[in-house]
Amino acid sequence: MDRIYRVKQGMGGRYAVERGGNLFWLQGEVFGTYQPGEEIPAGAALKFLAPVQPSIVVCIGLNYKDHAAEMKKKLPDEPLVFLKPATTVIGPDEPIRLPDWAGRIEHEAEMAVVIGKRASQVKAVDAMAYILGVTCLCDVTARELQVTDVQYSRAKGFDTFAPLGPCIAVGLDPSALEIEGWVNGERRHHSNTRELIFPVPYLVEHVSRFMTLQPGDVITTGTPSGVGPLVPGDRMMVKLEGVGSLSNPCR
Amino acid sequence: MDRIYRVKQGMGGRYAVERGGNLFWLQGEVFGTYQPGEEIPAGAALKFLAPVQPSIVVCIGLNYKDHAAEMKKKLPDEPLVFLKPATTVIGPDEPIRLPDWAGRIEHEAEMAVVIGKRASQVKAVDAMAYILGVTCLCDVTARELQVTDVQYSRAKGFDTFAPLGPCIAVGLDPSALEIEGWVNGERRHHSNTRELIFPVPYLVEHVSRFMTLQPGDVITTGTPSGVGPLVPGDRMMVKLEGVGSLSNPCR
Repeated sequence: MDRIYRVKQGMGGRYAVERGGNLFWLQGEVFGTYQPGEEIPAGAALKFLAPVQPSIVVCIGLNYKDHAAEMKKKLPDEPLVFLKPATTVIGPDEPIRLPDWAGRIEHEAEMAVVIGKRASQVKAVDAMAYILGVTCLCDVTARELQVTDVQYSRAKGFDTFAPLGPCIAVGLDPSALEIEGWVNGERRHHSNTRELIFPVPYLVEHVSRFMTLQPGDVITTGTPSGVGPLVPGDRMMVKLEGVGSLSNPCR
Repeated sequence: MDRIYRVKQGMGGRYAVERGGNLFWLQGEVFGTYQPGEEIPAGAALKFLAPVQPSIVVCIGLNYKDHAAEMKKKLPDEPLVFLKPATTVIGPDEPIRLPDWAGRIEHEAEMAVVIGKRASQVKAVDAMAYILGVTCLCDVTARELQVTDVQYSRAKGFDTFAPLGPCIAVGLDPSALEIEGWVNGERRHHSNTRELIFPVPYLVEHVSRFMTLQPGDVITTGTPSGVGPLVPGDRMMVKLEGVGSLSNPCR
């Protein structure tokens, strides 16, 4: 299994791949054919960026039964789709900026799927071939605005409201991974992606049936129960089995 | 007043500017300083593209009283924001592809605002300096999905569901423009942007308060009453005073 990182270099990023416990610069195309190139010395000071810059983050709501229950919502018959703009995405350790006028801000710990090639009208049975891998996403949400606005776009669309990373795990089966969300060392979410109401291949079919997904676009699969507040000074962490931990401070 | 067009050239587009009744290739930067360059001969065969490729289309719902009434919705206290992904955008004369499984598809004729420079935390009083100009947009909507999904993302997010153009009118006051929507030569919408509940500067403040807008991004200001069905073979036209007509066939 590979883990793909994007490492800050100057104003941009350069891809690296972790294989067999070692880290290499990635040779080739991350959305095509790649192989490990020159090894990066252990202990090198690297700053990791969000592993992709999606054109859009497609989100699925109410995809764990326990979260639907905590939100007092009926289970959906079909995946509930909403969108976070690209401007929400930040990388590991970048600060989540909490607006001081938007009421209670909450965390949602999610497994995110990174699209590997242009996907339109893809059937569930073919979906895995369109996925590069999975990573962690924190779907930060202004909970009071979500309720009063009805549409989720503003409540979930603030700049910095989608920490993403730290890497893309390639070749991992997304159907049974432990997922956790932690705030300041306290575990708030704990579930397994086998609890997803609509599994990953079904989501790719559902979304690509109406919109074309581009390489690097992200579908985030929804949060298990355990949502709770974030306040300035908190450190939010999402852990996904096989991927690692995404940690971000709140300001 | 200038009108800015994007003309198809090979796989890409090249900007042109109409000034004083003549058309010129645009010299300089459309989102910076530009001037008319070489004149384009009258009668040249030109194919116009969507005048910008936005990273996102930010939409405002229920922004005319008469449309809120026809949808039997209460007037919002604040602008209702939702998002259409970039993949919805098509140019003049490109076909709107009507899905055959999504129920009734309807037209909404709108004035769209094109952002001219990066906009974050902009006050209404300063907003006009962040706007390059205005154009026409048809907010195509799968009306039955909009109702059953509650979230608008899918119903309004199908590929080709945001015809945009034909040009950006620069230096036009957006506060009192006649707007019309026509299907097959029959007028379905007719209003004036002075009827907007939340005017353009207020919308720029509202949206840029939570998300950063990029040059070329679009805020579309909502539809007046007159929504109705689109079926294959129809030709949809949006007319905006000072801009012109955006016309698209339906398939």
